[in-house]
Amino acid sequence: MHEVPHGEILKELKKLGAECVLIQSPEGLRREAEGLAGFLEENGLTVILHGDINYGACDPADGEAKMLGCDALIHLGHSYMRLSLEVPTIFVPAFAKVDVVPALERNLEEIRKLGKRIALVTTAQHVHRLEEAREFLERNGFEVLIGKGDSRVSWPGQVLGCNFSSAKVEADGVLFIGAGYFHPLGVALAVKKPTLAVNPYSGDALWMGAEAERLIRKRWAQIVKAMDAKSFGVVVSTKKGQLRLAEARKIVSLLREHGREARLIAMDHISYSALEGFDFDAYVVVACPRVPIDDYENWRKPVLTPPEVEILLGLREDYEFDEIKGAERGEDEPLGISVKH
Amino acid sequence: MHEVPHGEILKELKKLGAECVLIQSPEGLRREAEGLAGFLEENGLTVILHGDINYGACDPADGEAKMLGCDALIHLGHSYMRLSLEVPTIFVPAFAKVDVVPALERNLEEIRKLGKRIALVTTAQHVHRLEEAREFLERNGFEVLIGKGDSRVSWPGQVLGCNFSSAKVEADGVLFIGAGYFHPLGVALAVKKPTLAVNPYSGDALWMGAEAERLIRKRWAQIVKAMDAKSFGVVVSTKKGQLRLAEARKIVSLLREHGREARLIAMDHISYSALEGFDFDAYVVVACPRVPIDDYENWRKPVLTPPEVEILLGLREDYEFDEIKGAERGEDEPLGISVKH
Repeated sequence: MHEVPHGEILKELKKLGAECVLIQSPEGLRREAEGLAGFLEENGLTVILHGDINYGACDPADGEAKMLGCDALIHLGHSYMRLSLEVPTIFVPAFAKVDVVPALERNLEEIRKLGKRIALVTTAQHVHRLEEAREFLERNGFEVLIGKGDSRVSWPGQVLGCNFSSAKVEADGVLFIGAGYFHPLGVALAVKKPTLAVNPYSGDALWMGAEAERLIRKRWAQIVKAMDAKSFGVVVSTKKGQLRLAEARKIVSLLREHGREARLIAMDHISYSALEGFDFDAYVVVACPRVPIDDYENWRKPVLTPPEVEILLGLREDYEFDEIKGAERGEDEPLGISVKH
Repeated sequence: MHEVPHGEILKELKKLGAECVLIQSPEGLRREAEGLAGFLEENGLTVILHGDINYGACDPADGEAKMLGCDALIHLGHSYMRLSLEVPTIFVPAFAKVDVVPALERNLEEIRKLGKRIALVTTAQHVHRLEEAREFLERNGFEVLIGKGDSRVSWPGQVLGCNFSSAKVEADGVLFIGAGYFHPLGVALAVKKPTLAVNPYSGDALWMGAEAERLIRKRWAQIVKAMDAKSFGVVVSTKKGQLRLAEARKIVSLLREHGREARLIAMDHISYSALEGFDFDAYVVVACPRVPIDDYENWRKPVLTPPEVEILLGLREDYEFDEIKGAERGEDEPLGISVKH
């Protein structure tokens, strides 16, 4: 499904003078990682595969590459996120080959329900098709807005599971192109506007409103469950792009100022099972915002996001989705591999 | 059950001039970690708890401490293992308060079946009681040998899940003092002598022979299952004390020399679920030796240790348990906390 540009990657590695390289991959690109490893080894490089599953550019294995004596990292499947890296890293986004226009065409009547002025967003996988989508929609009478987004994303119109800055434009509703619930649900929660997800593989269209409302009700229930908690574990991640230490310290102070006990906890992969031995009444996750949202059913204690703590303490009234925000972005990333030092 | 010496730890932290400290703990010492955190914070330190579960001194969170801006690490529950550390680290072994002599007394007849000349070993938890045990046994007519062990352990007579060097002495059999199957099973497999485990908590004694034989039969079955495997994933761990990179490279070369495909894979916590997307026919774990031994039932592909690969390739005939060996040890560690830079 995804094509990894072997030749281009080899060329960049030669330019870097790399002799040993670590290849990091998400679950869906394991075979591609193996194929790339074979190709690079035939071309004289020493290759190590990274076995931990990678969920995003927020978790580059640059430190591991250094530890293993590699002089470069290849990060498959995600575009560059602004982070300080310990070895030169080649980001290889995975662009899907599927055409997006047929699915838009098929769902034109649904899309019209969003209004005339629509925000158009997608994931890194389909971002190279966004201009085609825009042209098609404009030909069909829409005013299409593609938000630039902040420095956490690589391209205009790109959304991450933790950042929907590019969807926040003056539109009537948001049209998301891509598969799955994960991203468009985040869009609906973060932007609070009608959100339609059009899946270019299946051709289906899904309104996210009901699911978003159901989820917000669940979040209010978590806040209520945590209301009487005396002690809070405030969890940060040691993953480079999720280490929101200053925000976590702020939450600890806020809780203490309001008479609750709070303790900072740092960990890599955040799961309740690892925390089970501690004696906290509730947890706050100041790391990937999706952990409390998508995984709370596996927690036997209430688990909140930072804005939910503000609601709990009476400092905020409206529900707000937790996002990891970037600074203002200068240039876009190339629509292909990109080498970062 | 375990007493953590708050005052001593604070004194060492003051000597180090530490202002922020990360506390790492195994699952059984989570509450003690919380208690220590409260005490240190009352004394003016900034404290972060490490949330990942720690299984041994082979996996110190010194790198994480540095990343979090801490100037010291407290590692609860294990004695120092010779590793290069990124921040000053205070190792706080957990010594159990239970007396070991009553359980020995109760099982004297069973112990006699080991022979007259016995090797005496235990875990870090009971190592401070080893001299009492020795005296009791000598009074009862035994010749007691306590092996010095290599540099991976801290004290004579101490065994780890991956190192049984202290049990390898000229004795008729091995007497293990401690709870659980994990350590004495390793003793029986590594030393290949009659091994009796005496549990000081329950007072029970268990012969390990049958369980060790059952396990060796399972290991031979794994080797047979891997016999026709064309491609092998050779897994190293990025945990500092499990990073057996040179050995892993040797296994890759060995497999390739014998006409098999092999690829090096590096990962933190080794589990089959993370590797499921790869296309290897079998795996070799060159990290914690207990992963293939204790976890193979969760793997859907055969998973071997390095000596098992040698059997597979016809380079070895006898079954040998995989151990992580240390160099010759100079001094013993103190029987208390120890500060390493």
